[in-house]
Amino acid sequence: MNKITKLSKHDLANAQETVEQSGRRDFFRKTAAYSVSALAAASILSPVKVNAEDDLAIIEEQPWATSLGDPVTKNQYGIPSAYEHNNIRRTSDLLSSGNWQASISMCPIHESEGIITPNGLFFNRVHGGVAHIDPNKHRLMIHGLVEKPIVLTMDQLKRYPSVTRIHFIECPANGGPEWRGPQFNSLQFSKGMMSSAQWTGVYIKTILKDLGLKPEALWMLAEGGDSSHMGRTVPIDKVLDDAMIVWGQNGEALRPEQGYPIRLLLPGWEGNLCVKWLCRLEFASEPFYAKEETAKYTVLKPDGKAIQHFYPLEVNSIITNPCPEKPWTDLKKGDLVQIGGLAWSGQGTIEGVDISFDGGKNWIEASLEGLVLPKSWTRFSYMYKYEGKPLLLSSRARDDAGFIQPSVKVEREVMGVESVYHRNAIATWEVTEKGEVNNVQVLS
Amino acid sequence: MNKITKLSKHDLANAQETVEQSGRRDFFRKTAAYSVSALAAASILSPVKVNAEDDLAIIEEQPWATSLGDPVTKNQYGIPSAYEHNNIRRTSDLLSSGNWQASISMCPIHESEGIITPNGLFFNRVHGGVAHIDPNKHRLMIHGLVEKPIVLTMDQLKRYPSVTRIHFIECPANGGPEWRGPQFNSLQFSKGMMSSAQWTGVYIKTILKDLGLKPEALWMLAEGGDSSHMGRTVPIDKVLDDAMIVWGQNGEALRPEQGYPIRLLLPGWEGNLCVKWLCRLEFASEPFYAKEETAKYTVLKPDGKAIQHFYPLEVNSIITNPCPEKPWTDLKKGDLVQIGGLAWSGQGTIEGVDISFDGGKNWIEASLEGLVLPKSWTRFSYMYKYEGKPLLLSSRARDDAGFIQPSVKVEREVMGVESVYHRNAIATWEVTEKGEVNNVQVLS
Repeated sequence: MNKITKLSKHDLANAQETVEQSGRRDFFRKTAAYSVSALAAASILSPVKVNAEDDLAIIEEQPWATSLGDPVTKNQYGIPSAYEHNNIRRTSDLLSSGNWQASISMCPIHESEGIITPNGLFFNRVHGGVAHIDPNKHRLMIHGLVEKPIVLTMDQLKRYPSVTRIHFIECPANGGPEWRGPQFNSLQFSKGMMSSAQWTGVYIKTILKDLGLKPEALWMLAEGGDSSHMGRTVPIDKVLDDAMIVWGQNGEALRPEQGYPIRLLLPGWEGNLCVKWLCRLEFASEPFYAKEETAKYTVLKPDGKAIQHFYPLEVNSIITNPCPEKPWTDLKKGDLVQIGGLAWSGQGTIEGVDISFDGGKNWIEASLEGLVLPKSWTRFSYMYKYEGKPLLLSSRARDDAGFIQPSVKVEREVMGVESVYHRNAIATWEVTEKGEVNNVQVLS
Repeated sequence: MNKITKLSKHDLANAQETVEQSGRRDFFRKTAAYSVSALAAASILSPVKVNAEDDLAIIEEQPWATSLGDPVTKNQYGIPSAYEHNNIRRTSDLLSSGNWQASISMCPIHESEGIITPNGLFFNRVHGGVAHIDPNKHRLMIHGLVEKPIVLTMDQLKRYPSVTRIHFIECPANGGPEWRGPQFNSLQFSKGMMSSAQWTGVYIKTILKDLGLKPEALWMLAEGGDSSHMGRTVPIDKVLDDAMIVWGQNGEALRPEQGYPIRLLLPGWEGNLCVKWLCRLEFASEPFYAKEETAKYTVLKPDGKAIQHFYPLEVNSIITNPCPEKPWTDLKKGDLVQIGGLAWSGQGTIEGVDISFDGGKNWIEASLEGLVLPKSWTRFSYMYKYEGKPLLLSSRARDDAGFIQPSVKVEREVMGVESVYHRNAIATWEVTEKGEVNNVQVLS
């Protein structure tokens, strides 16, 4: 044997000290309830199944191990395994009034991992159905208060220097049906009006460099080319900050339900502002007050008045493991389990997430995991020793803009219960003695 | 009008100074051939099409603007627009010998954007066809030189603390057919044996903490559960560094052709080592010399001897715009155009990329764009004023391990032309006067 002697054997204990490759956070925070040594003494799986003599799946040969599989993927766009048939977007009669061309389809965020949502699972809201646009016949007109108005083909648009960024998009109505109390015992239906992707496109400020923005331009109208002609007005500060026209999503073209061939992307702002099937940008000195920003997408206050021009999505978070769709019914007392979740803010970067086991009386800091990017989903986790006791499990995120999630009580005091949009109160899962998980609200 | 007066009008010139949001690099490098002021004086599109009176696409109403679209996506997994039918993986008879169950399917990297490849387009190599495994009947056995051997169900495996990382996977034969000269006038066929994704799974060192690795364990055998029973041996240093067992790809389950339900991931190392349909890990004191690491996947030297245990993929890069599939035939003299490309290294993080217009005689530094992560695709770009002259366009990447891509001449001197694997010489596109792009090799 041509044995390699230059490889030095690592000391396993030392190797475990470097478990966190990204180096951003300690894997086990010093603030955690269970110390590193306590975790080291416990096993993830108890009991460890050393012998599997009674497990036919390991003893018997499986058909896929003894016969050839399918040919290599050939001139085709791939699809998921048939065994993943439950990982799909879902709709609700409660949120559609039976009109599926003006409705919403929710992302299975209970099945989601990391900060990328596959395009086939990305949530979507339509106001006039999903348009199927021929990109060769689609144009983008940019006019109004610019020196050189222009009509661009898609090829011309893509000539501009492009950038790629990871951002979430969220409907401001995400969680909105729950102002008065839980409506869905489900993560997908209570927080699934959002997804996250890697977007490729051009900053609008880059195009404006060619066109010349007039000094009196303070607002930009974005109009969709679909039958709903969705119109929203955007203040010029956002346009010149990070507003993009995007054609790429997760490395390929936008899907039809995401506005193919192009949509507006306003990182961190309401999803409805990210106008799909974008066909027109008009610059003006005053807002346009289009239908969808007067009849809809205003924030109703307890006094009956509505707030207009309320765009960025507030700091928010949700625990994804456990959740109603992923309960802890298989856990045994003493098992270690990784509590996991998502935090996000349209106003900046997530700075930290706290977890409570008693509905918000006491908090302990979780670890942020993986990439921590501005206006992007951020994963958090916490290693927990399961005791089989009832819990009220909550998460509370804070961002670098200085915001922190309010309690349900505080949010209701300010906003009442009649609003639909911009709900970011602390969410709570009830974990029963049996490990079942229910959607509840803590009002105290 | 309820005009918002608190919004201050940005000075556009100032806004353009902050064009690069990530802040990592200047958008226009000081080292660039064309200064910021020179670029500012030119337009991206020349002539700018101010009037579009002759363009029926903007004048006439399109059908999608006047009639309702499809219902919102409902209980279904989405697919791309029909207009994107050319964005698919492709195979080559030259690389298959007609046996499609032991072949490779190449990623359309000429259509790719950013550092995420959609799962439906991820390249794949199979040795016994694509297995379709029932995850409920799949087991992972971990045994050999461990204190507590174990057989894990998929549910048990997912109980371990998971991590999510973005990494490329590349076949070491990527570009391999081209040792003697260009074989394909195509980016997809010359460099498409790679893709990149966000992977979710567990570090093997995390599991070994539970199982107890014996001090004499120096190698790990990984075996696939498909009909090819792919076997590869991995040195323990890599196992205890960043080796992962992954079940998640871009936020959902692995696709069947990627090893559903689990595969090994060795970030930066040869794709064939990242064993798919993973069913067994065995720890031992010596390498296993499985068929696929003796009969194949060794590196042939000019003296007829072969290098074994040669795992990490070297620093590499390729220009993706222009390329044979995306020529510059529509450009006019004086147009500004964004040259773009991909750089990657299995040995670290990309530190920089240089571009040459004369086949490697002179070099100029490009900008790195977006996320720059270890053992991950990294995008680079360079703003160029097109002159309509013939070019020999090359890129040359360097990584933080201290490596830089060799010329074809230097690589041939060391490795000859009989090898198949680990080709990372500088690649060159010939751009003709008409803007056509051809795959060439510069041998001087």
